[in-house]
Amino acid sequence: MFRPEIKVIDCTVRDGGLMNKWQFDDTFVKQVYHALADAGVDYMEIGYLSSESAFDRKEVGPWRFCGEKDLQRIIGDSEKKIKLSAMADIGRIDYDDIPVRSEGSLDMIRVACYVHQIDKAAALAHHCMDKGYETTINLMAVSTVGPRDLEEGLNDLAKCRVPIIYLVDSFGAFYQEDIEVLAKMYMERMPEKTIGIHAHNNQQLAFANTISSIICGINYLDATLYGIGRGAGNCPLELLLSFLKNPKFQVRPLIKVIEEQILPWREKIDWGYFIPYMVSGVLNQHPRAAMACMESDKKNEVTEFYDQMTSAAAGI
Amino acid sequence: MFRPEIKVIDCTVRDGGLMNKWQFDDTFVKQVYHALADAGVDYMEIGYLSSESAFDRKEVGPWRFCGEKDLQRIIGDSEKKIKLSAMADIGRIDYDDIPVRSEGSLDMIRVACYVHQIDKAAALAHHCMDKGYETTINLMAVSTVGPRDLEEGLNDLAKCRVPIIYLVDSFGAFYQEDIEVLAKMYMERMPEKTIGIHAHNNQQLAFANTISSIICGINYLDATLYGIGRGAGNCPLELLLSFLKNPKFQVRPLIKVIEEQILPWREKIDWGYFIPYMVSGVLNQHPRAAMACMESDKKNEVTEFYDQMTSAAAGI
Repeated sequence: MFRPEIKVIDCTVRDGGLMNKWQFDDTFVKQVYHALADAGVDYMEIGYLSSESAFDRKEVGPWRFCGEKDLQRIIGDSEKKIKLSAMADIGRIDYDDIPVRSEGSLDMIRVACYVHQIDKAAALAHHCMDKGYETTINLMAVSTVGPRDLEEGLNDLAKCRVPIIYLVDSFGAFYQEDIEVLAKMYMERMPEKTIGIHAHNNQQLAFANTISSIICGINYLDATLYGIGRGAGNCPLELLLSFLKNPKFQVRPLIKVIEEQILPWREKIDWGYFIPYMVSGVLNQHPRAAMACMESDKKNEVTEFYDQMTSAAAGI
Repeated sequence: MFRPEIKVIDCTVRDGGLMNKWQFDDTFVKQVYHALADAGVDYMEIGYLSSESAFDRKEVGPWRFCGEKDLQRIIGDSEKKIKLSAMADIGRIDYDDIPVRSEGSLDMIRVACYVHQIDKAAALAHHCMDKGYETTINLMAVSTVGPRDLEEGLNDLAKCRVPIIYLVDSFGAFYQEDIEVLAKMYMERMPEKTIGIHAHNNQQLAFANTISSIICGINYLDATLYGIGRGAGNCPLELLLSFLKNPKFQVRPLIKVIEEQILPWREKIDWGYFIPYMVSGVLNQHPRAAMACMESDKKNEVTEFYDQMTSAAAGI
């Protein structure tokens, strides 16, 4: 039996774009858009919502901005086939640059923040709600937050108007038991909220932790095609839909778009299970050092990377 | 806290050899042997125990046989550093070709069988016990066995003298919940036995299912370096030891041997998460069709493979 409250959010373009500066061409984004709609996925997170002044379009692709013109190229002349989401980073989007929902094509804005930014995140999310959007706050890097700060943060989140709060394993450091403890804590501290999960795959646990989240009652589930995403990547969407066994989901469109659009990128960029990402996950570290290693000519010199990271973690 | 009863069995050479017909050179096997010993791994499964008449040494490497001369080349003149295991397939080893333990270098013989072969497996394992070996029976492909056959099989295993019985997810089809149900069933039906887990990674759940097994009280844990193994491979040993946090385990020797011996094989053979393996896991099918696809020039034509497999599974 499936649970009708479950919503699946694909982050292929948004999180995958962290690996190639959103240099996906329109054909890629269109095919993903149609495949997700055909598969019955609930939301497509198509990129970040940023002010044009925050980045240079010569350096990053359109999905760092998600301007209405960008969105229109993908949707085309037909009716929109799937709800669209964009992620907003605090400080990279001016309130005035956010259109009211009825004048644009986005349905949901998700505000990502660290625990010390909750007030700012709530203010931005409230602004988006007042403009008509569905909103979430995605509390990142929870694996590095101590119990007192987390308790205070969750209490603050409980008081805000945003209806959906995400548990984000930014570093791919959590085991299933961590998810169980945190899911319980989130639901107890924020009984009025819907909880979401966004997992990373450093320890090959993104899918497993998403399953554990479902069992714990978490209902908003992030995933990406073939797990594409920053560093080790995310929960693979094709695995998640196969697991959910909801008759509204179809796996075949995902397999097809993976063949046609994702596998060619697999030849160009490395996401997934690699020792540098494994090491940063085990050590509960930001993946930036592992990504730098993977992009260098020392990609396979994993013992040296391990030694550097364990020395740093030990404060040596 | 760790659980002292837990034993870790590395199957790198044995299960990895299914991907290259055991064409690992002695340098590879020696380095793995020393790394596993330095890492504190409890057993190294160095291959299959087969009669020389069962296979041709021109076609398969030495670790399809595990002759005493083969083992001696690896151990060298020093004292043996780690317990050695070999897997025996029913019908491929004559009883007379199994030396008594005190005359050879193997410590453990693991007998792999399907549910209809339990009597033969028990006979072979008892023979090995009588020759002084530690023994296990590894009941394969449990995901295809119905409840009545499984109940009967477990009752038969409960009656045999073999002290360790493995739960084997041959097709990588199980979710954590399956492991929980089966682990409970195995322990209830065979209260005198120690239970082991051997997981495959078709759905990126080999490590997660091994963690779930540990939580359920399973104490013999199979893994391989970087997950090398048939098809999607196995539970990655470096992840497992990082999780176990037993002070006797060291991860660094594993990272080093992965760099020096496993990554070069990664360029030559494809194990791990690929769509054909994902499809066969989701559909609970033997990986042979997925392996044939991966070895063909249609490796990336995953939609066609998906259509073939789903049609076959639907009996079309």
